[in-house]
This record gives sequence, structure tokens and C-alpha cells, in this order.
Amino acid sequence: MDVTLSQAQVQWSEQARQYATESLAPRYQEREQRGAVERQVWREMGTLGFIAPELPAKLGGRGLDRLTSGLLVEEIARGDFSVAYLQVVGSLVGQILASEANPDVAARWVPGICRGEHVVGIGLTEPQAGSDAGMPELRAHRDGDSYVLTGTKSLSFANDASAVVVFARTSQEQVRGKGISAFLVPLDVSGIRRESYTDMGTRAVGRGAVHFDGARVPGDHLIGVEGAGFSEVMRGFDFSRALIGLQCVGAAQTSVDETWRYVSEREAFDRPLSTFQGVSFPLAEAETRLAAARMLCWRTLSLKDHELPHTAEAAMCKWMAPKDAFEAVQTCLLLHGQYGYRTELPLEQRLRDVLGLQIGDGTAQIMKLIIARDRLGREWAP
Amino acid sequence: MDVTLSQAQVQWSEQARQYATESLAPRYQEREQRGAVERQVWREMGTLGFIAPELPAKLGGRGLDRLTSGLLVEEIARGDFSVAYLQVVGSLVGQILASEANPDVAARWVPGICRGEHVVGIGLTEPQAGSDAGMPELRAHRDGDSYVLTGTKSLSFANDASAVVVFARTSQEQVRGKGISAFLVPLDVSGIRRESYTDMGTRAVGRGAVHFDGARVPGDHLIGVEGAGFSEVMRGFDFSRALIGLQCVGAAQTSVDETWRYVSEREAFDRPLSTFQGVSFPLAEAETRLAAARMLCWRTLSLKDHELPHTAEAAMCKWMAPKDAFEAVQTCLLLHGQYGYRTELPLEQRLRDVLGLQIGDGTAQIMKLIIARDRLGREWAP
Amino acid sequence: MDVTLSQAQVQWSEQARQYATESLAPRYQEREQRGAVERQVWREMGTLGFIAPELPAKLGGRGLDRLTSGLLVEEIARGDFSVAYLQVVGSLVGQILASEANPDVAARWVPGICRGEHVVGIGLTEPQAGSDAGMPELRAHRDGDSYVLTGTKSLSFANDASAVVVFARTSQEQVRGKGISAFLVPLDVSGIRRESYTDMGTRAVGRGAVHFDGARVPGDHLIGVEGAGFSEVMRGFDFSRALIGLQCVGAAQTSVDETWRYVSEREAFDRPLSTFQGVSFPLAEAETRLAAARMLCWRTLSLKDHELPHTAEAAMCKWMAPKDAFEAVQTCLLLHGQYGYRTELPLEQRLRDVLGLQIGDGTAQIMKLIIARDRLGREWAP
Amino acid sequence: MDVTLSQAQVQWSEQARQYATESLAPRYQEREQRGAVERQVWREMGTLGFIAPELPAKLGGRGLDRLTSGLLVEEIARGDFSVAYLQVVGSLVGQILASEANPDVAARWVPGICRGEHVVGIGLTEPQAGSDAGMPELRAHRDGDSYVLTGTKSLSFANDASAVVVFARTSQEQVRGKGISAFLVPLDVSGIRRESYTDMGTRAVGRGAVHFDGARVPGDHLIGVEGAGFSEVMRGFDFSRALIGLQCVGAAQTSVDETWRYVSEREAFDRPLSTFQGVSFPLAEAETRLAAARMLCWRTLSLKDHELPHTAEAAMCKWMAPKDAFEAVQTCLLLHGQYGYRTELPLEQRLRDVLGLQIGDGTAQIMKLIIARDRLGREWAP
Repeated sequence: MDVTLSQAQVQWSEQARQYATESLAPRYQEREQRGAVERQVWREMGTLGFIAPELPAKLGGRGLDRLTSGLLVEEIARGDFSVAYLQVVGSLVGQILASEANPDVAARWVPGICRGEHVVGIGLTEPQAGSDAGMPELRAHRDGDSYVLTGTKSLSFANDASAVVVFARTSQEQVRGKGISAFLVPLDVSGIRRESYTDMGTRAVGRGAVHFDGARVPGDHLIGVEGAGFSEVMRGFDFSRALIGLQCVGAAQTSVDETWRYVSEREAFDRPLSTFQGVSFPLAEAETRLAAARMLCWRTLSLKDHELPHTAEAAMCKWMAPKDAFEAVQTCLLLHGQYGYRTELPLEQRLRDVLGLQIGDGTAQIMKLIIARDRLGREWAP
Repeated sequence: MDVTLSQAQVQWSEQARQYATESLAPRYQEREQRGAVERQVWREMGTLGFIAPELPAKLGGRGLDRLTSGLLVEEIARGDFSVAYLQVVGSLVGQILASEANPDVAARWVPGICRGEHVVGIGLTEPQAGSDAGMPELRAHRDGDSYVLTGTKSLSFANDASAVVVFARTSQEQVRGKGISAFLVPLDVSGIRRESYTDMGTRAVGRGAVHFDGARVPGDHLIGVEGAGFSEVMRGFDFSRALIGLQCVGAAQTSVDETWRYVSEREAFDRPLSTFQGVSFPLAEAETRLAAARMLCWRTLSLKDHELPHTAEAAMCKWMAPKDAFEAVQTCLLLHGQYGYRTELPLEQRLRDVLGLQIGDGTAQIMKLIIARDRLGREWAP
Repeated sequence: MDVTLSQAQVQWSEQARQYATESLAPRYQEREQRGAVERQVWREMGTLGFIAPELPAKLGGRGLDRLTSGLLVEEIARGDFSVAYLQVVGSLVGQILASEANPDVAARWVPGICRGEHVVGIGLTEPQAGSDAGMPELRAHRDGDSYVLTGTKSLSFANDASAVVVFARTSQEQVRGKGISAFLVPLDVSGIRRESYTDMGTRAVGRGAVHFDGARVPGDHLIGVEGAGFSEVMRGFDFSRALIGLQCVGAAQTSVDETWRYVSEREAFDRPLSTFQGVSFPLAEAETRLAAARMLCWRTLSLKDHELPHTAEAAMCKWMAPKDAFEAVQTCLLLHGQYGYRTELPLEQRLRDVLGLQIGDGTAQIMKLIIARDRLGREWAP
Repeated sequence: MDVTLSQAQVQWSEQARQYATESLAPRYQEREQRGAVERQVWREMGTLGFIAPELPAKLGGRGLDRLTSGLLVEEIARGDFSVAYLQVVGSLVGQILASEANPDVAARWVPGICRGEHVVGIGLTEPQAGSDAGMPELRAHRDGDSYVLTGTKSLSFANDASAVVVFARTSQEQVRGKGISAFLVPLDVSGIRRESYTDMGTRAVGRGAVHFDGARVPGDHLIGVEGAGFSEVMRGFDFSRALIGLQCVGAAQTSVDETWRYVSEREAFDRPLSTFQGVSFPLAEAETRLAAARMLCWRTLSLKDHELPHTAEAAMCKWMAPKDAFEAVQTCLLLHGQYGYRTELPLEQRLRDVLGLQIGDGTAQIMKLIIARDRLGREWAP
């Protein structure tokens, strides 16, 4: 046990910090207005090794531990919360394809994810189904050598993704979590229509829907075993939940850093604002909450690196870190007074951005359910 | 003591509810995009008696109790949070002019406020001074029959206001809260430049700055006694603080009402969402917090109606109601899942709007200072 | 609507404040050690009109409004939290007997409650059943002119009560809330065994169990209609929930008052503690929360006085006021530093006492259920 | 970086868990009633290597890393919160003596601490001075070969300690944190009077005062350099703050474990309590908060093991872990309903015990001050 960073981890971290500060942060607001992350940034992120670096070299990754992936997500989110989605989605989809997809299909798609050449989205939820991922209305049926899909999925990068991993029902019975299969669907096939959502935040991520109207994919684009893929693939989310935790911590930590600076430079009642306990104590509390959330995420990633159970831990990261990060950003915004409320500063954008991850990838309620099941067993869980 | 509403109060309240629901709510989002409240709405609000109805009839008001004014603010804010600013600013400025201004000046300006013909803003803070209203950099000096003002004030309705009430230093010494005078400044005089801010929310209110560069007002536009007006005028804020509390409660209550409906109609895991305690309990908590905040505001307004001390109570309203309302709206947004995060629903706009009043008109820190002074005496206060 | 107190209400309140301060507070800790409230105090409370004063004069009450009863509870709880149980239990039982019991039985028992001659307890819960009051294991069957009871009830004043109101199942079927009847059981009949609990707090109240082993009561001691009494009698709890809210507010408010004093007298780092925002702001927050809770209770009692619906409001009082009061007392204790932790000061006793009412008379979960049912209808409630 | 436990750490941890469960827990309540920890337990704790195991073997320790010390504190506190004080005080005093005291004096006293033969207390605060440890009223003056002390210190184990480490002013000027020296004072010298406090909790620790009335200690009992010891010795508290965090986490975690069990065994409304989200979700939240607090403490201890700065981190542990642990225990108590409030279960004792460490060893305010100083520099701190 050693809760300090290795030399290599510190170096990766510093590289990401520098890129985030110098290259990403200055255009954080611009990206929101444009509603997209520049392809140039995709490629830079890929070239620098910041996307799915835990994947093996032969699939385009760097073979790093997941904790390092988490450090990189936190640093990138300091500069631009939306750009960090490239990492979270990249690691999630990359891992699913690397471990469950047909090796040829994986070899065709994963290296491009790591290099930032394309984005492969993940369509977990549906407009009508929300958190109930085990009951998709998207259906797939085998037709000769291919599968034909009909239904709708919501996803991030809905406009920009080249392909998407989806869950579809492949059986007739309607049993929750059963008879569900995962597919990789290239989005240039016919029978695909994209729709954009307008969200409160993370607009550069371009959330929206993909409508599948008889979209046809080759049989080898099935991921895992037909009808049995759901729980396998869902396990991949334990990883992304810890990454999401660090993504939120990153955006909040940079807000806290900015606010310490602001309150020590700005005066009121003839004293620096920072000399008022009513100002500094809430910041000290935010620092603490973020430090604790960060450690919870590190621990979860470390457990995954050691192939130890970490489902409950990941669920803890996913509800607590986004919540505490949101509150930290709000504290920072309020401590900036009227300036914090203005769009010149990045604080209000971060508040809107971070809020989305109290919902996306599973609400707090779902996470507490997962924790309760882990402790009680499914039979006694709520 | 009777904590139930009179017949007349219920009627006023219902009228405002109807107007808010039918006429205001449908264009809540449109008003934000336009960045202004339509003049048509100003006049309707005035005609219906919703602006500063506590003022006497001879000044254009209805002679109602302040509690009724508060009820009207809550109802209007249910339909459009920004429109309710007409009421809060109208009551605040109307009262200051009615009680402290030269009677001719009051007679010239106040009836138009009540009728919704014009808006008179209030410039309490300055870009550089934040919560420290007792140390304005705006200066006014007597020059013959007039005063000449130089400096800057931030205010709501910065684009639309016809005049503004400001505090300016009229003495040489720099003593906090001393040597400060209030003026009514018509904004069509020369030496005025308006600037718009872009805020996270309440964009229809059009917050911004007015720069005074040698702006000249007649001597009778001094409000109260030269150099002695500060604390007199500041007392007016006790009234608007309770109104602000109800404004926030209104926006939050309508969100809670919508959410009870949503969660009973929407299903997950084959049951209405509302049947999950993890969904309904947070809503029950929000209901309770709003009910308590509302009563705190009613109590404060009732004390004012009876001319009993209510400065600490008003400060309690001002920090607690906006905070609890913000949290209630956030709870509602999260319980709507991804829908809550989309801009189609008014929830995200309400969240951004309500947030502003944790800052505007005095931060929570200032309010707690006021409460502590009330309990401890100024000498032992922080 | 008038949210200020009448002359009479102020007078009653002051009388109770004086009695609490001078006569009750000095022996608050002694009463806990003895584990009982002195009979002398019962009688003084009765003589002063502090027990169930809302009852009509012919039953020994004073015919006051319920809001005044609430004011008296708050004031008495400032001096001794346990003594205020005489009022809460007195009002609850007094009202049930006055409105539902056989008039002769009521005439025999109620005046003695009001005069402080005896205590009639209420046995709502059972050791095995907790919050599920609608499923009692206590059974009563008719035998000639009397009813025979077998089972166990938990109650306050288990040692001192002369009689107890209980719910017993009188039907064969086991349907929740159905087939349940209420009885007044004098505790000097045969087949009664008393047991004392040792609780964390409110030891002067003497909570415990009464075991009924074939205890026989006359037929006219049935309260209401056989098998139909449950929901009638349960409505009485709306009243006591608001009283409990004020009881908790009283104990917390007196703690806050003491703490303002303490922190302005005690110095650290060469300044009065009160001049630190980290000290005064939490106190200002506690003041605010208590003021809001108080108003919620006043509103509920006022609704009851006007015979308007107030079940949801009462449930709001019951979960919020004990919770916020507990937190206020904890804040006060902590602000006293090591002194607050010592048993010389009454703070730690108040903390233990107040905690009990987050459980007794229905947990927060039950209260939120009631609120959700009120908003959703029973079918969509959790 | 590796956030998982080593084989050795797991073994130490399991040994402590077993001892705590089998030997300590059954007499947790008895120890409180007696107001002392049995000498037998001191010795067992020592023999098992549970007291100050991070000290080198030559001083009686085991040369373990501090993280392991922390694991042992958490496990012991699961069985008896007060017994864990032996560890926290032992490690704190042991470290001070080992690193700052005269080597002969250290060799005389430290091994006995590790073996559980005697307790050496630490007197940081004074009845009149609270958190302001830098301004002691205890004075020491050199007289020949010895120092003579006059004044009073509060400490844990006030009855049982054989000696105590104290801070005394050795200079004339009254400058905060300057001119202060530390001494080891054997408590069998003349001029010593002990006083017992009666606290709300941790009664087995026996907090009280030691009055020094011309107590004389040999010159070599000065710890560190005369007049310069304060900040050196204070640094030792960084270590004990992380231990205290884990002590609180341990007591809370065992409460959470018990409560998962209780709510899955107990039924209400015909279902296990655990199947209600209103029951299981608060427990899942408590699990998460404790997991995060634990990791914060592990991180802090790991930083210390690597001799990296950790003063701010230790302060974070000290305010957050006791607070979150208190809330977790309260949640558990409430979820047990009336049973939780009774003294048969250990929950209410744990609540009282854990509360003390929101005060002892520095209040939350002091800790936030330390964090703010670390971030801002002392000049801009509150």
C-alpha cells in the first residue's frame, strides 16, 4: 500500500496539466458555443496518449495502469470538462471492445479511438427508459449474416461519433437484464438518423439520439454472446464511474484553486476577502471534500488494477464525486459574487457542465441501489 | 395571530396565479432569449395591480398590506422569475421614493412604476465593491442647484430603466456608511453610458452597469438628507429581502409541483417513479423546506405591516429561501433525469435564475452578519 | 392573516417562560437522574393552565386556541424538555378522550389531566412493531360487559401513568389499519405489569412498556366505535406533531440563546469568540432554521384552529423541527468546546433529549410518506 | 501507487479485528460505567503490539509503517472507542518523546507505553484556553537543575496517567506560540492534584485536569529546546489527527455494519426494512462517506510514511472524519428506531463517544484555519 504517485504518474499528470492549461482552457467557452470539440483536439489528445492509455499497445493504448488514466482525466477536465468525455467514453468503449468484441472488429476500431481519429459512442439509455438500462426498447433480430436494429438510443457525441455500442433486445420475452445483446453499429450504414439535444451544459459533447430504422450490421459486430452480454458489458461501467468521479473533481478543483486566488486578491471592508472565515472556511471544506472524493476514485481504480472487486466502490464514486464537485463549484461561484454569475468567468459553465454527471451514466439512486445490493444481497435490497 | 389567508388575499393570489400560468409561463424561455421583458407585460402587470400594490392609491398603489405584495411575487415568479423582478424592484424603489424623496419627485415617478409604464432601477453595488455597499466609489458633488455624479453602478434592468436610485459619496472622508447620499437619476440626462452584462441567468432582467460621467441631476433629486441617507434607505431592503425570499419559493414550488406530476406519470422498473422512496422522499423534503421558507417570509412581511422590528428576520429570509429554493429546483431537475437537463423544460432555466439571488441584494455572508449583529450588538459581531 | 402574537398570547407565553426559567431549569439535570418529573411539578403545570389549555373549561381546560398551547410547549421545553411531555401527551390524550370517548369516561379522566393530578399515557407502538402502528399485536376481545386485553405497548410515563390509551386488534383478520379499536385502560386493574426502558435521553419521562395479560376494562372504556377507531384517533396526532415541533424548537432556542452569550463572553486569540465568522455564522444559521421551523408549527396549529386540512403540514413539522433542532443543539454544544461536552452544562442533556423525538411519534420516513400521500394520492405514493 | 493493503497489513488488521470483536466489544458499556479501561486491557493491547507499533523496536515498537498503525486504530475502535485512545495517545506521545526528548528519558518511558504498562498523557489545552494552545497559562521556571511548574492542563487518562507531556510558558513575554517549552512531568512528584471531569461520552478515558502547584521536574525532562518546542511538538499532531479520523471511522463503520444486518432482519409493513429505499439509501450514503474519510486518512498516513508534507491533509481528516462518522452513527441509531435510543445497544454510547472528537484535539474551525493557511499563506488566512 502506497498512496503516493510514482514518478511516471507524476510525469503523465504534469503533461496533461500543461496541455489542459495552455491548449484547452482558453477555448473552453468557445467550444460550448460551437457545440463541438475540434477534431484537432481529438487528434492531439490521441497523439499525447491521453485517450484510453490503459489499453495494450497493440490496440493503440499505452499499457498504463487505470489509476494513471484517472489522473489524466482529472487533469484534462481542469481545462475543459467536455474534452474529458473523449477519455471517459474512449476508455469505456475501448475496454468493452477490447475484451468482448470480435478481435478483428476490435482491431479495426480501437486504435482509432486511442489515436483520436474517431469517436465510438455508447448508447446505454433510451429517451423513454432513463435509468432502466436492462429494459431496452431497441430490438435487434438476426437476418442471415447480419442483425437488423430498430429503436432509439441517447448518447454523447451523437453528431460526431463514427459508430456506437448499443444494447438491444434479441429475445422475445421481456425480462429485465435478460435476452439483451450488445452491438457495435457503424453510423454510416443506412437506416440511421441523428438528432441533437439541447442541454443545459456540456454542449460541446453534443448529446443527442440515434434513431435506428432497420439499420443493418454484420453478424461479427455482435459484442459477446447473443442474449448474454448485458451484465458482462455493464461491468465496464465500474471503470468509467471512477473516471467520471475524477472528471468532476478536476473541474471543481480548478475552480477552488481559482477561488483561493480570487479571494486573496479581492478586498472588502478594507481586508482581503480571504481573511474572513465566512469566505475561507467554505473553501477549506470544498478542498477537503474534493480530496476525499479523489481518494475514493483512486482506491477504486487501484482495486480494478489489482482485479479486486470494486462495483460498490465505483458506485460510491459516481454518486458522491459529482455531487460534492457540483457543490464545490457552486461555492466557488458564490464566493466570486456577481462576477461568478457572469459568463466571462468559466465558473458558471463548469457548474452547468458538472451538473450533467449527477444524471448521466446512472443517477444517484441507481448507485445507492448498487451499494445496497452489494451489502445486503439482491434479495434484501430496495 | 392567524396564519391563514383572508378572502381578499386569496383572490389577489389566484388572479396572479392565473396570469402567471396563462400569460407568463408560456414565454418564460423566449424572454430569456430576447434578454428583456416585453413592455406589454410591464403594463399588464401594472394594470392588474401587481407592482408595488402596498403603496397608497395617490401614488398609484392599491394600499394593500405587504403580505399580499409577497403573495403576488410568489405567484408571478411561478410563471416567470424575471418578471417578478418588476415587483421586487418596484416595491423597493417605490417605497424609498414614497418615504424619502421630495414629494414632487415621488409624485412624478412612483405612479408610473405602479402602472408599469417605466422601471426605476436601484444601483446598490459597484463592479469593484461587491457587498460593501457602504463604501461607494460613485461620487456626487453639489454644483449650484444640481448634483454632478461620476462613477459606476451595477443594476437590474440596466437597459430598460428610465431612472435609477443610487448611493453616492458626498463627503470627502472615506468612512464606511457615512457621508453617503441617495439620488434619483433620470437616465436620459447627458453623461450616462449603459453597459450590458451577460449573466448565467435572469437574462430577461438585463443586468448591467450604468456609467456616470459628470451626469447632472437637479438638487431636489437628492433622496433624504445629504450625507445621511444611507441607513434610512438601506432599511428599505428589509422589505425586498422578504419579497426575494418568496420570489425564489415561487419558482421552486412550481418546480416541485411539476415534479410530483412527472414522477407519478413516468415509470421505471415497471412502477411509477413516485412509488420509490428514493424519488418521493427528496420531494417531500423540498416541499417542507419551501413551506418553512414561505412562512419565514410571511412572518417578516407581517412584522413590517405591524411596524415591528424585522431586520434580522428579513436577513434570514434572504439567505435561507434562495438557498433552499435552489436546492429544491436542483432536486426537481435531477428527478427528471436527462429530461431535466434539457432546455425544453423550464427547470434548468429556473436553476440558473434562482442561483442569482444567492448573490444579488447581499450574499449569505452579509445576511448572517446582520443576524449576528442583531443578536450580539455590533461590538461583538464578526 | 396576521403573523404576530396577540396580547393574551404574549402573556401566556411570558408566564410560561418565567416558570420554565425560574422553577424548571434549575432541576433539569436532577430530574433526569431521578428518572421522573416530580408530582409537585405536575400540579404546578396544571394549576398554571399549561396542560391541554385548548380543552373546554368544563373538562378542565382553558378554551384557548391551539397556537397558544404550542407557545406554552415551546416555553416549557426551554426549561425542561421532559416536563413538556406532560403537555404534549396531555393535549394528545385529552383531545382523543374529549372528542371520541364515552362522555362519562371523559369527564372522569380529562379534568385530572388538565390539573396535573394524573397522567394518562398513550401506547401507540409495540416493541416488535415500531412505526407500523396499524398492525398491533395487542388484542382485545369482548367478554360480557368488558374487554379483555393481551399484549404489550410502549409508552412514555410508563411508571407514572394512571391509565393509558391503547390500540388493540378487535377483529380476527389481519388487515393493516382495520379492525382496530382504541381503549382507555386504567393501570390499576389486574393483569398489568410495567417495565422500564433505559433510554439515551428524556429519562425523566420514564419510557417503558406496559404488559397486558388478560387485563379487563369496562365496555364503556372503548373509545369510538369498535373496529373503526384507528383513523379517527390517528388524526389527533396531527396536533401533537406540531406541538412536538415546538418542543424541540424550545430546547434548541434556549441553547442558541445561551451560546450567543457564551461566545461573546469567552475569548480566544485575544478576541471574543463571537467576532469570528466561523463561530457566529453557524449560530446565525441555527437561529434561522429554528425561526423557520417555529413558523411552520405556528402555521399548522393555526390551520387546525381554523379546522382546515393540516395533515401534511403536521408531518412536515414532525420531521423537520426535531432534525433542525438537534443540529442546532449540536452546533451550540460544539461552540462551547470542551465545556459543551461536559455534563455541568445542560447542552449534552438537551442533545440526548431532543434526539429521541426524531424517532418517537413516527420517524422521518413515516412523515415523508404522509407528505407524499397527500401530494400524490395513496396509489402513487411510495 | 497502490491503494490496496499488503499481506502484512491485512494480517495485523484481522488480528486487531478479532481482539476488538471478541475481547473488547462485550465490555464496551461496562468500561463506560466503571469510568476506566482495565489495566489488563492496557497490557493485552501492548502485548499484541497495538500501541504505537510504528516506533522502532529498541523503544518497544514494531517498526511498522504509520498506515498500519491507522488500520489498527480503526479496528480497535470498532470494539471500543475509548480503548483506541490508548493507541492515539500512545502514538502521539511516543513519537514526541522518541524524536524530541532526552534519549535517556525516552528510553525510560517509551517502552512502557508500547507494552501497555503505563500511559503518558498529553496536556495540550487548559480549562480557560480551549483551542488556543499557543497561549498557555501554565508556567515553568528553571530553578537549579530542575523546572518548577504552576498551572493547569486538561487531558485524557487524567486519573490513570503516570506522566504527562505539557506545554508551559518559559519566557516572560506573552507572545502566541513563542517562548513555550514542552516537558515530561511524572505525576508522582509533589505539587500535583488530579481532577476528574464528567463528560457526555468516552467516560472510560477519564478526561480531567491536572493541577500543577510548584511541581518540580528534573532539567532533562525538558523536551526539545527551551522556548522553541512549540511548533516542533505540534507537528506530531498531524499524525494523531489521521489516527483520530480512523478511530471515528471505525466506530461508525461497525455501526453501519450492524445496521445493514438489523434492517434486513427486521420487518415493517410486511417487508424487510432494508427493502425500503428510505432506509437503505441513507445507509449507502453513510458507507460512502466513511469509505471516503478512510481513504483521506490512509493518504495522510502514507504521505507521512514518505516524509511528504501532510499538515493540510491531516487537518482535513480531523474535521471531516469525526463529523461524517457522527452523522453515520446517528443515521444508524435512527434506523434502529426506539431500539437505537435504548442503552442496551451500543449505538447511543458510540454517538456520545464520537461526538467528543469533533472537539478534542482541535475544533473544526481550527482545522479549516490550518487548511486555509496552507493554501493562502499565513498572511492572507482568516
